[in-house]
Amino acid sequence: MTANDYYSQANHGPYLSYDLGNFTLEEGGMLRGCQLAYATHGELNSLKNNAILIPSWFAGTSKIFEQAYIGAGRALDPTQYFIICCNQLGNGLSSSPHNTPGASGRGAFPQVRIGDDVRAQHQFVTQHFGLTELALVVGGSMGAQQTYEWAVRYPAMVKRAAPIAGTAKNTDHDFIFAQTLMDAITSDPGYQQGFYASPEEVREGLRRHSRLWAVMGFSTEFYQQQVWRGLGFSSVEDLQLNFLDAYFLPLDPNSLLRQLWKWQRGDVSRQTGGDLKKALGRMTAKTFVMPIDEDLFFPPRDCRAEQKMIKGSQLRVLKSICGHLVVNGMEPAFLAQVDSHLRDLLALPVD
Amino acid sequence: MTANDYYSQANHGPYLSYDLGNFTLEEGGMLRGCQLAYATHGELNSLKNNAILIPSWFAGTSKIFEQAYIGAGRALDPTQYFIICCNQLGNGLSSSPHNTPGASGRGAFPQVRIGDDVRAQHQFVTQHFGLTELALVVGGSMGAQQTYEWAVRYPAMVKRAAPIAGTAKNTDHDFIFAQTLMDAITSDPGYQQGFYASPEEVREGLRRHSRLWAVMGFSTEFYQQQVWRGLGFSSVEDLQLNFLDAYFLPLDPNSLLRQLWKWQRGDVSRQTGGDLKKALGRMTAKTFVMPIDEDLFFPPRDCRAEQKMIKGSQLRVLKSICGHLVVNGMEPAFLAQVDSHLRDLLALPVD
Repeated sequence: MTANDYYSQANHGPYLSYDLGNFTLEEGGMLRGCQLAYATHGELNSLKNNAILIPSWFAGTSKIFEQAYIGAGRALDPTQYFIICCNQLGNGLSSSPHNTPGASGRGAFPQVRIGDDVRAQHQFVTQHFGLTELALVVGGSMGAQQTYEWAVRYPAMVKRAAPIAGTAKNTDHDFIFAQTLMDAITSDPGYQQGFYASPEEVREGLRRHSRLWAVMGFSTEFYQQQVWRGLGFSSVEDLQLNFLDAYFLPLDPNSLLRQLWKWQRGDVSRQTGGDLKKALGRMTAKTFVMPIDEDLFFPPRDCRAEQKMIKGSQLRVLKSICGHLVVNGMEPAFLAQVDSHLRDLLALPVD
Repeated sequence: MTANDYYSQANHGPYLSYDLGNFTLEEGGMLRGCQLAYATHGELNSLKNNAILIPSWFAGTSKIFEQAYIGAGRALDPTQYFIICCNQLGNGLSSSPHNTPGASGRGAFPQVRIGDDVRAQHQFVTQHFGLTELALVVGGSMGAQQTYEWAVRYPAMVKRAAPIAGTAKNTDHDFIFAQTLMDAITSDPGYQQGFYASPEEVREGLRRHSRLWAVMGFSTEFYQQQVWRGLGFSSVEDLQLNFLDAYFLPLDPNSLLRQLWKWQRGDVSRQTGGDLKKALGRMTAKTFVMPIDEDLFFPPRDCRAEQKMIKGSQLRVLKSICGHLVVNGMEPAFLAQVDSHLRDLLALPVD
């Protein structure tokens, strides 16, 4: 284990942890006493049919969704719904390289797949809350990967699904983009196969990783129109330093690497022998596929191709000049669109 | 000086060199006995009004344009035109870090700007060929930067201009993309501030640089539709290895870095105190602005914004699923579009 003050209740809480016991991973590893960190908002009703599950995205925790998307009067309204925000395995709050004791910690933390996350979340919500249905699963980016995985793996349980800015089967382009993010970190001589004493030793690798997000995370028009000025930054360099570096540099490199490996391999068709159409054909959830128009690496057309394979689904394209990273919630007009679509989706009757 | 077999007459010739003498650079450096490497095709007519100038793009040489764009029956027809392909300073054939003797070589090679290239080319074609006009300046990517620089700096001389997939003033997004390419190389411990004994010592940095091109150089749809199969590659990894790595790994890291620094700072408005509209207003060339529809880092809208500032110009968007790297000539349908537009442009009467 290594100390990392970033992953604290002060920064991300309040959150709780559920003990999954010894959790066997698809790749063959086992997490002993596997912890799933989560936060809930609102109350589960007596029919247990008002639960909404939100899995976390890359480098994010349950806190971001709470801060940007959940609130009274919002679509994700804790006065109406019981909202469960789950932290994906390896993200720093759930069982992760830096907080796992023993031989499986740090650079030896096993590889985790999207399917593992969804099985872990399923075990948690069924055992701990006794849920048999989810009114909605919604998530952005890697949260969308988990949303799709939920809807394909447990179709009877997922009544509605809203994958935002993500795909059911990761694309080749996304795979190689994620690889450049990984290479930026692992090429730092301080990385030492994941057995650095402190993330500080991998600082330059983390910075290179951060700077790649500057290129791919925002749209070209975000820069052309200097949208960053309205976000309170004085220059592009200031944006890179005080938004992206500030965000990414405190994170644990091993945690980022495990999430990136997982992102690269997100693929619901693993459940159907590689047949994506068959996998998406299993979905019975009312589904809104919600790409972002200016997303450079989950472009709408990639999402639309999958949406067409989901019966009864709708394509709801979100408009934002910011590009992919707008999922972090920096643009009120974007959040208003998400709310509007989610309200429509939640208003759809289900069986 | 360091040996590099890549930059040879066998690979890029036949080419000649013009001695510019002691050439003072905008950044204050001086290249003593500065060599401008070039190749010509066709014959200069007696009126000296059939010359076409083609500056090279990033990591390219005069040879690529010759192979992909020049030929009898093509728009760039050496039976009609006297075509001069110039290698930008620092590209490995012209004066460059690896072939410059003395204290200014290798990691100490001075920074060069687009304006330096264009002044060097101007000196060459006026002194050596006695030219007073160019029927056309055409170039792709960094070649487009030089094309714009030519048309703004020497408006009376440039009768027609065709910047392909490039901008007159580099964008912030392009700047940070180019920076990630530079950081990929300089972060290699073998780089040693440019004083490596052989590019082989910077292999992993060059590979990371190459892999970033895989993300940004092609479009997402190029991968989605597996266009690479039609180019003779068996997988995305094979494409990365045997197209991009094969292309970039033999190159001199210092050469790439000098070109990237130059690319970042391409800006015709340096001639007008930062006033881009005023700079582009100087252009009198008949101009076709030719972005590529799927270009991830020189998107058509960035090019269109500049085109609107050029009086009498036309926007001719090139369609290619491949994205930016199609400029290398791998798609016949793309080359046919370029030829068609260049024929239209060359048919326009000039003063």
